Amino acid sequence: MILTVTLNTALDITYRVPALVPHASHRVEEVAERPGGKGLNVARVLAALGHEAVVTGFAGGPSGEVLRARLAELAPVDELVPIAGATRRTIAVVDAVSGDTTQLNEPGPLVSPAEWDAFVATYGRLLDGAEAVALCGSLPPGLPVGAYAQLVRQARTAKVPVLLDTSGEALRRGIAARPDLVKPNADELAQLTGSREPLRAARDARRRGAHTVVASLGAEGMLAASPEGLWQAAPPAAVRGNPTGAGDSAVAGLLSGLVEGLDWPGRLTRAVALSAATVLAPAAGEFDFAAYEKMLGSVRVTEHAH
Amino acid sequence: MILTVTLNTALDITYRVPALVPHASHRVEEVAERPGGKGLNVARVLAALGHEAVVTGFAGGPSGEVLRARLAELAPVDELVPIAGATRRTIAVVDAVSGDTTQLNEPGPLVSPAEWDAFVATYGRLLDGAEAVALCGSLPPGLPVGAYAQLVRQARTAKVPVLLDTSGEALRRGIAARPDLVKPNADELAQLTGSREPLRAARDARRRGAHTVVASLGAEGMLAASPEGLWQAAPPAAVRGNPTGAGDSAVAGLLSGLVEGLDWPGRLTRAVALSAATVLAPAAGEFDFAAYEKMLGSVRVTEHAH
Repeated sequence: MILTVTLNTALDITYRVPALVPHASHRVEEVAERPGGKGLNVARVLAALGHEAVVTGFAGGPSGEVLRARLAELAPVDELVPIAGATRRTIAVVDAVSGDTTQLNEPGPLVSPAEWDAFVATYGRLLDGAEAVALCGSLPPGLPVGAYAQLVRQARTAKVPVLLDTSGEALRRGIAARPDLVKPNADELAQLTGSREPLRAARDARRRGAHTVVASLGAEGMLAASPEGLWQAAPPAAVRGNPTGAGDSAVAGLLSGLVEGLDWPGRLTRAVALSAATVLAPAAGEFDFAAYEKMLGSVRVTEHAH
Repeated sequence: MILTVTLNTALDITYRVPALVPHASHRVEEVAERPGGKGLNVARVLAALGHEAVVTGFAGGPSGEVLRARLAELAPVDELVPIAGATRRTIAVVDAVSGDTTQLNEPGPLVSPAEWDAFVATYGRLLDGAEAVALCGSLPPGLPVGAYAQLVRQARTAKVPVLLDTSGEALRRGIAARPDLVKPNADELAQLTGSREPLRAARDARRRGAHTVVASLGAEGMLAASPEGLWQAAPPAAVRGNPTGAGDSAVAGLLSGLVEGLDWPGRLTRAVALSAATVLAPAAGEFDFAAYEKMLGSVRVTEHAH
């Protein structure tokens, strides 16, 4: 079983309008709701790849109930911890004509110390049966700033490989607890290290505590800096589409590859192919399985000198 | 008791953002939720004026549950009829800097014939104790096109004065059933009659079946065309602020004035003062009671020749 943690889950709502015009009134033509948050996306992709995926984190309020009801229809196992506050909503307003998306993200619910304690207990129990764990996304208000550092240490103590995919202060503090893997994008990596030069920045991030750094570089693919070596994997050509969820699919590729014992080139190939197949899928956060399988054969992996 | 009907209730959500930028991502700074729909707004104002107000219509789904929970904290009595579909949400995105609002309105839930029958029975029971009834807003999908005509006839049979405040085809069909009062704004009146000349259009609307037509004309105040005469009431000066809910406050002014036996100049004065006090209130759909009382003394009413 692979465990994913989403402390700030979201009910993702998509509105289709002809075109968003500021300060005008819009009749929404189509409403879609899906359970969201990075770890939930990762778990869905893991399940599609044939892995047993369990999701934990927090859910509460009416939006949390809807999230759990929708999650029950999907493959990942729901081990979310109930909270008094309401799960945040995100609204993606899609212009029907251009396909462009305007995003409105609510802040997360306030999590109490008792709710955090309940989560930590659940997490400890779930780590027992986990082959790997991914800690994904932002921290809701109320959590200790060192929350991810604590969860990384708990995983290391339980000898479960742990991937951290977050940004800003949460990444800075979490990385110091020595996760097996971090997966920043170019912006997150630059924010962490101050460098926009991927190789230099990835090496810097490793010095800050990450065993391996896999940086996602958009059209340039992904760069892995690990104790075993340095690899870069790229799709055959830039893919066009909706990049929402592409990073989460990459995390699922890395984690499933790790659990299946693939080497770094194999893991990167899978991550890049999944990421591209997600960009190509019409619905945000879904991936095109046929495109994924086709892409697997055409991802180019190059090894860099140490 | 005054009854208000809102067939397409809404959970009104307000998001505060620094400024809405199309195709960008926004962190919502503040989220507010309130029970919405025109009849619910009318009932809140009626209650603030000291009247017992009862609301009916439809509510369902998670958004309907939130709406009812919030309504329970307010004065109006909840007689909403449960439905399987989910109450629509409306999202008002307010730019913190300019105060400008971008509106996103979900379509209403599909109402089944059995749910409509259940509503008609509830409505009949509530008419029994009502001094007046207001039928407010749009029709959700699934209702018969003649829904308002049926409710107008039911009120007339029960000898309960009935006000219809809707637009488009729902107004066109409802007015033919001879409601005591319709309250279109200038656009709705023009759409109904084809005329942008208020006096001519109001007379035309009376010929179409309304006993009295009260047209709300924005800064020019309100015009009443009734069998007793023609009056226009205007605020002393144009008021600046958020016009959301101003029309609903006017409906509350007209209905409460009717029930209290005020003459037309008295009813119009109250409607105009409430409307202006709503525009002046900082929160959309609320009204400033002190401004209302002050305004009452300064509304100018003029009588037109027949």
